[in-house]
Amino acid sequence: MSKKILVLPGDGIGPEIVAEAVKVLEALRRDFGLAVELESGLLGGCAVDAHGQPYPEETRRLARAADAILLGAVGGPKWEAIERPLRPERGLLAIRADLELFANLRPAILYPQLAAASALKPEVVSGLDIMIVRELTGDIYFGQPRGIRTLDSGEREGFNTMVYRESEIVRIMRAAFDAAMKRDRRVCSVDKANVLEVSELWREIAQTVAADYPEVSLSHMYVDNAAMQLVRAPKQFDVIVTGNIFGDILSDCAAQLTGSIGMLPSASLDAHGKGMYEPIHGSAPDIAGRGVANPLATILSVAMLLRHTLNEPALAERIERAVGRVLDRGLRTADIASEGTTRVGTAEMGGAVVAAL
Amino acid sequence: MSKKILVLPGDGIGPEIVAEAVKVLEALRRDFGLAVELESGLLGGCAVDAHGQPYPEETRRLARAADAILLGAVGGPKWEAIERPLRPERGLLAIRADLELFANLRPAILYPQLAAASALKPEVVSGLDIMIVRELTGDIYFGQPRGIRTLDSGEREGFNTMVYRESEIVRIMRAAFDAAMKRDRRVCSVDKANVLEVSELWREIAQTVAADYPEVSLSHMYVDNAAMQLVRAPKQFDVIVTGNIFGDILSDCAAQLTGSIGMLPSASLDAHGKGMYEPIHGSAPDIAGRGVANPLATILSVAMLLRHTLNEPALAERIERAVGRVLDRGLRTADIASEGTTRVGTAEMGGAVVAAL
Ligand SMILES: CC(C)[C@H](C(=O)O)[C@@H](O)C(=O)O
Ligand SMILES: CC(C)[C@H](C(=O)O)[C@@H](O)C(=O)O
Repeated sequence: MSKKILVLPGDGIGPEIVAEAVKVLEALRRDFGLAVELESGLLGGCAVDAHGQPYPEETRRLARAADAILLGAVGGPKWEAIERPLRPERGLLAIRADLELFANLRPAILYPQLAAASALKPEVVSGLDIMIVRELTGDIYFGQPRGIRTLDSGEREGFNTMVYRESEIVRIMRAAFDAAMKRDRRVCSVDKANVLEVSELWREIAQTVAADYPEVSLSHMYVDNAAMQLVRAPKQFDVIVTGNIFGDILSDCAAQLTGSIGMLPSASLDAHGKGMYEPIHGSAPDIAGRGVANPLATILSVAMLLRHTLNEPALAERIERAVGRVLDRGLRTADIASEGTTRVGTAEMGGAVVAAL
Repeated sequence: MSKKILVLPGDGIGPEIVAEAVKVLEALRRDFGLAVELESGLLGGCAVDAHGQPYPEETRRLARAADAILLGAVGGPKWEAIERPLRPERGLLAIRADLELFANLRPAILYPQLAAASALKPEVVSGLDIMIVRELTGDIYFGQPRGIRTLDSGEREGFNTMVYRESEIVRIMRAAFDAAMKRDRRVCSVDKANVLEVSELWREIAQTVAADYPEVSLSHMYVDNAAMQLVRAPKQFDVIVTGNIFGDILSDCAAQLTGSIGMLPSASLDAHGKGMYEPIHGSAPDIAGRGVANPLATILSVAMLLRHTLNEPALAERIERAVGRVLDRGLRTADIASEGTTRVGTAEMGGAVVAAL
C-alpha cells in the first residue's frame, strides 16, 4: 500500500529546495520501488496570500490524511507587518499543534567534509553527532493564560505560562530514551529545576521513565550550563531532551556548532510515527528565486522521513551516503563553499544527489 | 566619607577567592586612599549551616546598610538534598529580589593572553568584548502563579509564569542604553516576540526607550537566533539586553565563548548604583580548600564595584591593568594554564595582582 506524502514548499527558498527533495523521492520510487504518492499544499505566507490563513482548512485536511509531510520553510519580509494570527510562523505552530507533533528530533551532525566551516576548533567539533529531542507542542509556546493586560496602576504587563503535564513529559522522555537506545544510550535532560517548579516535575518524571530503560544512563543539566557545555565540549552529549523553549534555543546553538546549518534536517513526530520533516534553516528570502540555496538539509529530511515514518532505513542510508559522496566529490552550494571546491546551484546539487543514489 | 562594603565569601572556593579580592581592596585603601570599610556576612550554604537560612536576617540587615556587596559563590553537594527553600541558590535569588538588583551586567571579554583557551577559532573570538545586560529580578524566576497542581484527571501539572511590567522593561532598557553610550552605542534586544506576548511588550518598550537615546542604534533578535549568532559571529554584538531566563542562558553561552570563565566578573545593580559584585563562575566544590582556584574573576568584580558603585574609574582601571600585567608575565592558575606559562595558586595570583597595582 502506497503512503501519502504531503509536500508543503512554503515561502522563500522553500519551493526551490523542496523541488530537489522531491526529485530524490521520485528517483527512489522509480528505481527502488518506494511506494509513495505525493500531494502538495500551502503553508505559511503563500497560504496567507492564497487563502487568507497561514494554515488553511484545505492544508489541514490534506495534512491529517497524509502519512508524512515534507516542509520547505515559511516566512519572509512580505508578511512581517501583518497581524499576528496571520503570520507565516503561526501556520507552523498551528500544524504542529493540530497534528500533535510533540517530538522534535534535531540532529546536530558535523560532516567531516565541512569541518572547516565551524566557528569552533576542529578538535572540539570533529565527529560531532548529537541528537536533540525537543518537546514541540507544549510549554510556554501554547500555555494559558497568556496576553497583555493593564494593571490597576495603569501600566501594562505581558505574561505567558510555562506549563507541562506529567503525560506530556512521559511521552517526550520515551521519545528521547527510544532514540538513545539506537545510539550511545545516554540521555541528558535539560531543565532549570533550581528555579522552576515546572522543571522540578520534568526532572521527577525523567527519573521515572528512566527506570523503564535500564540500559540508558540519564543525567540532568541546568539549561544555562547546557549552553556553556555545548560551546565548551559538545561531544560529551549523546541525546539531549528538553522542553519547547529551551529546546528552541539549545538546538539552534547546537546546529550552529557545525557551521553548516544548510545541512541539518529535522523531524517532528506524533505518537504513531506520523511526522513532518523539514530543514532547520529558514526561508532565506534574500536568496530566494536565484537557484543558489542548499537543498541538502531538505534532502536529508527525506532520509529522516524514510527512517521514522516509512520504516525504510536502507533507503534512508542510501540518501545519506549519496549526500556524503556528493560532498566527497567537492560539490558545494554557496553557503558551504570553501577554497578548492566546486560551486554548484540548487538544481545541480539535487541532481548530483539523485545521480549518486 | 567611607563606603561600606559587605563581603559574602559564600561556599566552596568562595572564601579563598574572596580573600584575594579583599587583599586588593586593602591595598587600594592603604596605598591609594580608597575610603572603604569592610564587613562580612554569610550567604548560601554556610548561612544555612549557621542560621538555618540561606539569606539570614543578619545578612539582610548588613546588605541593606551596605553600599556594595562582594560575593564569592554559593552552593555545593552538601546542600543539594535539603528542601528547596533552604538551598543556597535561594539565598542568591532572595538577596537579588530584596535589594532590587534588577540590572545584571555580564561582560564577556576575551583576554588576548588567553585566546588559546577558547573552543572557538581565534579569528572568531579575538578581541571579543560584549556586554550582556540581563534583567535579574523579574520574569519567570519570580512570576506568580507558580507551582505543581493536580488536574481533575489525576495527573500533575507544573507551571510558572513569565511576566514583565512596562516599568520593569523601561528600567532595564535604560541600563542597557546607558551602558551602550559608554561603548559602541549598539543595543541588541533579545526576545521571542514571534511566540510570546511578554516579548511583544518587551519589544514595544525597547522601541520607546530607544527614542530617548538617538545616538544608540537598537536592533531586535529572537533568542534562538541570538544563540546561533553568538556561536557564529559573536563580535557582531556590542550590548545585548534581555530578560532573566534568556539572559541566564545567553550570558553563560557568551562567557564560555572566551574559554576562560575564571576571568569573568559581574555586577547586579539597583536603581541607585548600589550593587552586588561576583564572579560568574560557581563555587567549584571539587577544588575547594586546595588553594588552586582562580581569584581573577573576583578581583575583576572589585574593579566593577569601583566603577559602578564607588565611582572610582581610575582605580578600576588600575586593577584591570594589574590583571593584564600578571597575565603578560605568564602567571596562570590551573583553569587557564597552557604550555609555557607559570602555574600559580590562588594566593600567589592574588599577591601578584596586588604587587602589580
Ligand atoms: C518560527 C518559530 C515559531 C519556530 C519556533 O520557535 O519553534 C522556529 O524557531 C523553530 O525552531 O522551528
Ligand atoms: C544559581 C542560579 C539560580 C542562578 C540563576 O539562574 O540566576 C545562576 O545560574 C546565575 O546565573 O546567577
